[in-house]
Amino acid sequence: MDKKMQEYLDRLAGLDFRNMYEGDFFLTWEKTDDELNAVFTVADALRHLREQNVSTKIFDSGLGISLFRDNSTRTRFSFASACNLLGLEVQDLDEGKSQIAHGETVRETANMISFMADVIGIRDDMYIGKGNTYMHGVVDAVKAGYEAGILEQKPTLVNLQCDIDHPTQCMADMLHIIHTFGGAENLKGKKIAMTWAYSPSYGKPLSVPQGVIGLMTRFGMDVVLAHPEGYDVMPETLAVAEKNAAASGGSFRKTGSMEDAFRDADIVYPKSWAPFAAMEKRTDLYAKGDTEGINALEKELLAQNAQHKDWCCTEEMMALTRNKSALYLHCLPADINGISCTDGEVAASVFDRYRDPLYKQASFKPYIIAAMIFLAKQKNPAETLRSLAERNRPRHIL
Amino acid sequence: MDKKMQEYLDRLAGLDFRNMYEGDFFLTWEKTDDELNAVFTVADALRHLREQNVSTKIFDSGLGISLFRDNSTRTRFSFASACNLLGLEVQDLDEGKSQIAHGETVRETANMISFMADVIGIRDDMYIGKGNTYMHGVVDAVKAGYEAGILEQKPTLVNLQCDIDHPTQCMADMLHIIHTFGGAENLKGKKIAMTWAYSPSYGKPLSVPQGVIGLMTRFGMDVVLAHPEGYDVMPETLAVAEKNAAASGGSFRKTGSMEDAFRDADIVYPKSWAPFAAMEKRTDLYAKGDTEGINALEKELLAQNAQHKDWCCTEEMMALTRNKSALYLHCLPADINGISCTDGEVAASVFDRYRDPLYKQASFKPYIIAAMIFLAKQKNPAETLRSLAERNRPRHIL
Amino acid sequence: MDKKMQEYLDRLAGLDFRNMYEGDFFLTWEKTDDELNAVFTVADALRHLREQNVSTKIFDSGLGISLFRDNSTRTRFSFASACNLLGLEVQDLDEGKSQIAHGETVRETANMISFMADVIGIRDDMYIGKGNTYMHGVVDAVKAGYEAGILEQKPTLVNLQCDIDHPTQCMADMLHIIHTFGGAENLKGKKIAMTWAYSPSYGKPLSVPQGVIGLMTRFGMDVVLAHPEGYDVMPETLAVAEKNAAASGGSFRKTGSMEDAFRDADIVYPKSWAPFAAMEKRTDLYAKGDTEGINALEKELLAQNAQHKDWCCTEEMMALTRNKSALYLHCLPADINGISCTDGEVAASVFDRYRDPLYKQASFKPYIIAAMIFLAKQKNPAETLRSLAERNRPRHIL
Repeated sequence: MDKKMQEYLDRLAGLDFRNMYEGDFFLTWEKTDDELNAVFTVADALRHLREQNVSTKIFDSGLGISLFRDNSTRTRFSFASACNLLGLEVQDLDEGKSQIAHGETVRETANMISFMADVIGIRDDMYIGKGNTYMHGVVDAVKAGYEAGILEQKPTLVNLQCDIDHPTQCMADMLHIIHTFGGAENLKGKKIAMTWAYSPSYGKPLSVPQGVIGLMTRFGMDVVLAHPEGYDVMPETLAVAEKNAAASGGSFRKTGSMEDAFRDADIVYPKSWAPFAAMEKRTDLYAKGDTEGINALEKELLAQNAQHKDWCCTEEMMALTRNKSALYLHCLPADINGISCTDGEVAASVFDRYRDPLYKQASFKPYIIAAMIFLAKQKNPAETLRSLAERNRPRHIL
Repeated sequence: MDKKMQEYLDRLAGLDFRNMYEGDFFLTWEKTDDELNAVFTVADALRHLREQNVSTKIFDSGLGISLFRDNSTRTRFSFASACNLLGLEVQDLDEGKSQIAHGETVRETANMISFMADVIGIRDDMYIGKGNTYMHGVVDAVKAGYEAGILEQKPTLVNLQCDIDHPTQCMADMLHIIHTFGGAENLKGKKIAMTWAYSPSYGKPLSVPQGVIGLMTRFGMDVVLAHPEGYDVMPETLAVAEKNAAASGGSFRKTGSMEDAFRDADIVYPKSWAPFAAMEKRTDLYAKGDTEGINALEKELLAQNAQHKDWCCTEEMMALTRNKSALYLHCLPADINGISCTDGEVAASVFDRYRDPLYKQASFKPYIIAAMIFLAKQKNPAETLRSLAERNRPRHIL
Repeated sequence: MDKKMQEYLDRLAGLDFRNMYEGDFFLTWEKTDDELNAVFTVADALRHLREQNVSTKIFDSGLGISLFRDNSTRTRFSFASACNLLGLEVQDLDEGKSQIAHGETVRETANMISFMADVIGIRDDMYIGKGNTYMHGVVDAVKAGYEAGILEQKPTLVNLQCDIDHPTQCMADMLHIIHTFGGAENLKGKKIAMTWAYSPSYGKPLSVPQGVIGLMTRFGMDVVLAHPEGYDVMPETLAVAEKNAAASGGSFRKTGSMEDAFRDADIVYPKSWAPFAAMEKRTDLYAKGDTEGINALEKELLAQNAQHKDWCCTEEMMALTRNKSALYLHCLPADINGISCTDGEVAASVFDRYRDPLYKQASFKPYIIAAMIFLAKQKNPAETLRSLAERNRPRHIL
């Protein structure tokens, strides 16, 4: 057992996360500080083991089911990587190739795919009021199936992005911040700007800004949410952010000025999203199958967006930040001026300077997902980590 | 070795299934009673081991190839689960992404995908006279390839539904019946009703009713096949059912009345299917590429179906059965009144009451498939089961 | 350790292939003779171990990423088989289901999929000047990511077919030739005809003929490239072939006559391809999105092809070869007269006679890919092979 592993085990010993066993991961604010800390610690421990070429397979067989109701590269590969790291084989539920259109219920599908499933990862972020609800439907169904003796294990749900939160993304972002600043204890009083930014596309999910203000307010930081008028996020998540900030000794405020948010910020997260009200409207239009209405709304939203092309993370904006060198974050892919579009979320020179840290930020996601699974599946996670380290089975026989 | 495992091994010791080694699974009626019994026993044993958290991996590497020529959720996940349980990685042959359209022969494709394949699972149920024939083409090809030294192993074929039979489904149904009634020895004289039921869709495969009458007649039960005039199944399968019933000391008869079939039944299996003659016609129309003819046929069949909306598994129907509580079966997904359609195969209240048993029924399929593979791949299956139990390697390191 | 394994290890001991460690495989002519010989030897050794039911898994977990920008059956299954054989799970990057269309850079995508990737296999053969360039972009990106500490390992690239070469195919072809003729030492002075053949389709990649003349000229053989006027391959590859032939003591020449090429040939490889100039033009038309231009070009090319229906591997042609029994090669699927088309690349009777050897030829590809990965991933490949043989872990527990 090397010193680092011992530190991780010591840290876990001081945390109470027993309720995560056999649990699920929906929203970060449904978890205690200790529980989030446990996720970060297990993620670091799993990464450390892998870096030492130590296998962390805890499953000899078993499936990890993924269901993506929206396109995905990073999250898809992160989930696949996490499952593989723990010994599970990914099986994707492609609704187009299934009989689900046939009219079967969530309860049925959830059980039918879970006979040998240890994990279900779902991305369902397109429609307000739908994604998180769907995930709860799946969990209720497999719980009932497990209790009725149909399933031999209750698969754990990992929310791979819903309409409310994007916990695997925001937890990966946060772990990146923690590492960059040398520990969560150094974050008190740091200013983080979660700001809207212009994009030529429209309708991007709100789960990232909502997840960021819901999570980053728990570390004593000064969190500022900035966006043009009309680009409000879900009111419930504002309430979560305010409550968290008060509890953590930090602060949370909203502003209509990007400059205000960037001034003296230690961390900036400029990213496009769609107005909450418009997304609600869109959800209704889709429910009605009103194609004309959807097209009209799209046109309207694009016109509204176009009025805010000045909301861009330029060099001038970055110069306003602490020592002109705030940590720049993005969940990727970003709309980069002159690269992926004419006008976008960020100037090419800014993006390019932060490329390595951005990729590093993304690299935490597989480990965050693996840690969520690990904590839900292991009765005594610290003991398992210790025995994996002692087993010392090479991941790659060199 | 616990008592249950010992019972399974004892049961296997009394059966002759040596011909299953290196064999394939096409139709249940091509197998002896002992062979079917071996499948049930191995399925139970594999499930028991998994319930005890004992790994049943017999492969360290190797592929399980799946080819689905029709949509599938349950069977797809069952096949994936079975392969994973035994240590094989599933690789799906997606004909749309392959070069098969290029005009290559079955013989070629079959060999090209099989260099490291231990199993091939195929679903090809759409056209009368095609699916089973195709599967035999694949098996002939890989046999020739193995004998010519091209393949280092002969992959075993598992019929995941053809135009004639749906053996993995019907065997799972049967194992569910056996467990529900406390053993195959308790089935003599029990009445099972395989009946047509109304569905707003048309063209559902005949493989389930055909498979059911071909299999359930082997256990001394009184099997009744009920359908409106014109909804005949393939004549060959009627002959099989008659022969089986005579041999097993049970009975087989047809009726045109759902009530007649349900009266005093111990088990009911109400399910829509398409008329055999219409399916034959459709196969010809597809072969000719006659879109107009296909559309006309669809219209005609839907109109024909609509005359039989009274063929529904209502509470009134269920009240006719033994103690008003026959075991209700369905291969799922079912067309449920007021849930997946206005009028369908079954009343919502009936379906809901049987939900847990229905899901349990489905849960046997992965183990049935795994048992079919196991018996084809292991020279001495009982010995292997014993050594898996003794090896006692955890599936999940807790 | 059996005698055959000892021979493979002895052969490896005499070769210098240290530069393959942590390397990539783009084009055969970028590798030394010793390096190619190492690939053949490791491929044979891995096959030998698998034939002896010895597991060759060197990875306990890890991903093999595949990206197919063109349809594929053989190469897809060969890559999946190779990864599985070594213990890697295949994860396919389906660009249609990803966010790549979003405008992200190669550099970003390459890193995002590689956090736990040990191998990346790419097929990108459609556009002249694109495929190989894209692969280099991916490798440069993951190298940079590895050096920046983003990736914990540098995935190795395996070129599964680009616009220039098809190294896994041609190496498999060559290993088949070596085995057929009893060793590379017996190939001096043998005549091999790589000839164009008629196909009713158009636009087939040039990578096979280019790869063949680039590789087969390295073994002292007399290599003849034959095609009708206008069907030139990339000039650079002609230069490579000439240089190789001179160095190996063989010869390379072009001819406009299929008869000339077939006369006294020991090996024939008749196969359709598109004119290089036309492919360049098509690449430009696609870049411009000029659908009309593309359609016009297709029509023109089909008309041009149709003038050369006499370029077919008939029995008469085969009768011209050495003892009327040259080894017939094809990368498959072939256009077979009267089977997959009216007029095609080969007469049905010829194809049928060579079916087994053709399938055998294809069977080397999974091992060639596995060997390429093995040599890039193992610091001391011979030592690893020795310890795999000594570990003697069964692939299939019988």
